Amino acid sequence: MAKEQKLVEAITPIQEDFAQWYTDIVKKAELVDYSSVKGFVILRPYGYAIWENVQRLLDDMFKQTGHQNVSMPLLIPESLLQKEKDHVEGFAPEVAWVTMGGSEPLSERLCIRPTSETLFCEHFEHVIQSYRDLPKLYNQWCSVVRWEKTTRPFLRSREFLWQEGHTMHETAEQAEAETLQMLGIYERLCRDYLMIPVVPGKKTDKEKFAGAVSTYTIEAMMHDGKSLQSGTSHYFGDGFARAFDITFTARDNSQQFPHQTSWGLSTRIIGAIIMCHGDDNGLILPPAVAPTQAVIVPVAMHKPGVLEAAGQLRDGLRAAGFRVHLDDSDQSPGWKFAEYEMKGVPLRVEIGPRDIEQGQCVLVRRDSGQKRTAPLDGLAEEVAEQLSEMERNLYNRALDNRSNRTITCPDYSHLEQAVAEQTGFYLAGWCGGRGCEDDLRERLEISSRCIPFDAQAVSDQCVVCGKPSKHTVMWGKAY
Amino acid sequence: MAKEQKLVEAITPIQEDFAQWYTDIVKKAELVDYSSVKGFVILRPYGYAIWENVQRLLDDMFKQTGHQNVSMPLLIPESLLQKEKDHVEGFAPEVAWVTMGGSEPLSERLCIRPTSETLFCEHFEHVIQSYRDLPKLYNQWCSVVRWEKTTRPFLRSREFLWQEGHTMHETAEQAEAETLQMLGIYERLCRDYLMIPVVPGKKTDKEKFAGAVSTYTIEAMMHDGKSLQSGTSHYFGDGFARAFDITFTARDNSQQFPHQTSWGLSTRIIGAIIMCHGDDNGLILPPAVAPTQAVIVPVAMHKPGVLEAAGQLRDGLRAAGFRVHLDDSDQSPGWKFAEYEMKGVPLRVEIGPRDIEQGQCVLVRRDSGQKRTAPLDGLAEEVAEQLSEMERNLYNRALDNRSNRTITCPDYSHLEQAVAEQTGFYLAGWCGGRGCEDDLRERLEISSRCIPFDAQAVSDQCVVCGKPSKHTVMWGKAY
Repeated sequence: MAKEQKLVEAITPIQEDFAQWYTDIVKKAELVDYSSVKGFVILRPYGYAIWENVQRLLDDMFKQTGHQNVSMPLLIPESLLQKEKDHVEGFAPEVAWVTMGGSEPLSERLCIRPTSETLFCEHFEHVIQSYRDLPKLYNQWCSVVRWEKTTRPFLRSREFLWQEGHTMHETAEQAEAETLQMLGIYERLCRDYLMIPVVPGKKTDKEKFAGAVSTYTIEAMMHDGKSLQSGTSHYFGDGFARAFDITFTARDNSQQFPHQTSWGLSTRIIGAIIMCHGDDNGLILPPAVAPTQAVIVPVAMHKPGVLEAAGQLRDGLRAAGFRVHLDDSDQSPGWKFAEYEMKGVPLRVEIGPRDIEQGQCVLVRRDSGQKRTAPLDGLAEEVAEQLSEMERNLYNRALDNRSNRTITCPDYSHLEQAVAEQTGFYLAGWCGGRGCEDDLRERLEISSRCIPFDAQAVSDQCVVCGKPSKHTVMWGKAY
Repeated sequence: MAKEQKLVEAITPIQEDFAQWYTDIVKKAELVDYSSVKGFVILRPYGYAIWENVQRLLDDMFKQTGHQNVSMPLLIPESLLQKEKDHVEGFAPEVAWVTMGGSEPLSERLCIRPTSETLFCEHFEHVIQSYRDLPKLYNQWCSVVRWEKTTRPFLRSREFLWQEGHTMHETAEQAEAETLQMLGIYERLCRDYLMIPVVPGKKTDKEKFAGAVSTYTIEAMMHDGKSLQSGTSHYFGDGFARAFDITFTARDNSQQFPHQTSWGLSTRIIGAIIMCHGDDNGLILPPAVAPTQAVIVPVAMHKPGVLEAAGQLRDGLRAAGFRVHLDDSDQSPGWKFAEYEMKGVPLRVEIGPRDIEQGQCVLVRRDSGQKRTAPLDGLAEEVAEQLSEMERNLYNRALDNRSNRTITCPDYSHLEQAVAEQTGFYLAGWCGGRGCEDDLRERLEISSRCIPFDAQAVSDQCVVCGKPSKHTVMWGKAY
């Protein structure tokens, strides 16, 4: 009964209230449930399965590039967190503190890791002696805790799942190359699997990671024109190495500090998928990470032969390597259509008595709603073709939205007008001064998202102060 | 230099000091490193890779039996932990408490999960309404924290990695069947992949999990005759459901409480692998979970053609599906032999100029040290055969140790003498009374490991009090 109501009770339309639309999808597609601790969510089977698929894709790419997984402790002693000055300033205000173990107060309080640079450095100091021990290319899959004030599932939560890579290298050049290589892997994940076009670039000093020399980012545009920072990669130079006294004997027998990187991507990416592809009927999942790629809905399923044919269809598509679900429950086909649209299943396969007679079935694409009949013979090829067309379509739609909302602003009045007209990405010159960034945040409520790698000069003047422009910055509103 | 010393500096012999032998292996096989927080260890790449292999095997078996992965919060509010009386009594004394978030004291303190029954129950209450919502078959991979006083890597640590399954069922029968099914999966993991014979059985009330109606266990015997509890599965009845007010509308329209299970297996199993199979040269890994199944050591590797032949060997064995490492580093063959013995790599493949001439290589089994030449032609089949013989040998060796150390004790004097003679498993009758268990712990320092499923009656009297025996208990010393 509760379930049947779902068909009627639609989600809030995107145009009406974007934030509510998002929250509706997160609940109704059964991605998360809320716990009694603010900012700590439960990833339900469907939400977690998306994350498992993201994990598998990334983990393969990490291993192909020589990275190894490890597991670091959950807790960091306060004294360890404090070793690198910029880092502790950035993170100390937002950590959770453990002060009691069992019934004993602790002699030193321990924070739950908000990120693990300090833990990795403590270990690196134990295992790096010689250039032969380098590079160290480590990654871990875990959850971290940051005591955020406002929280939203996937986008900003007090606990989130992520991977954090931490590497050490002989030279600065090697560490810088690693930083960019890993950003490239994030870009590839988004472009080739999640069908999200991203803008790769460098963060300004104001926006970089606490303790980093430079931070690189991929920024994705959501339906509403806002930017979601979807993955970051940091180059640390030897700052942490000096703070933690990590040295190695170099090839010339001198003692050197190694050069460090870290890079992370979190369940936030599920928020990006929702807000980049979803529509008024619910979630739309890119086939590469969809827990179910095709759902089979038998029509008039109590007629003889229908369930058997649907079962054969399922077995055939599974054998061809697709993730397939046959819904033979007692719900009506109409209920099932709405349910799997809400859950963003890429392809629906309908089969009924007349289809069976004619040796065909009906395919319905989630992205376009497009219906077509397809012969049962050779169906796996047709399914592959439809999924791959869907991927192209998702990518192109997202790219169109971004193009339409990316405005080149040669001067302040253009920028002001563009911001007033619509939320989006604004390309404008910047002198490199922190004051001009602060100014734009205050006056227009926008921040520098990144200095895009491929940015063309749009003006020879800073959009704020008129001094010579050093960089073209992509400005926008951030999640 | 540091590394070359390793060859000389052997580990403590098993017979001399078993505990030190264990610690030496854990460090020298590069499984773990210690952090600055007592009881929190770092799983290094080699140690973590073993866990990843265990995970993959178990996760496949969980999914084949219809289980779904989820992710629950890290923190539990004190009031939630307290909802089930027996459970909180068991766990509250050993949890870590978070009392500050950022710079604010929390209004209610939160503990880091020592296990997640309470979190799952809070969620189940949200998602279970009708018998149609059952069963719920959930699992999560995570770490948990228990503030232990004495700690040892893998065996007892304040943080450990594990999986915890949590399920809800319509009937008690279904939940009981699930409890035993999952114990069976643990038994299969140990027997078919880890080559560890285990004794499955039921825990006595004294030894069962806090809040459970019944706890089942698999107990493995280590080299030294002690027992390692290697996985447990619990049946809860509807106790938690009542405490958390989880009800569902049954098929007959009545309101019912669902029946619950949970089951867990942790990185402790790596401790079992070490102490069940290892020897004076180091670790011995069962092929199914060995990160490297065969290591290729080229001999006289700077002679023309040797490295090329070794590379072809590697590629050929990889193509056949084996995890293979070719060590072409500058270390001597002798150093490499000792290194991969320490790391427990199942098979060493040596190849030098003369071997190449004769179209052969040398295979050395880690378990037996047995050397044999094998033709390069058809090598993959020979490798498969050797690995599978090694599996049988590991299992049989472990079974022999267990058989030799399992003593049937018809009365107290037999038991006393057996305990004095050697550490092992002692089968003896038990009246079912808690007092007799306490008595044996005090007088002989042994505890009931389990009531084995397949135990024969060994006496009609309790080994302690002489009253009628209700069960044959397997007694022993536990890790």
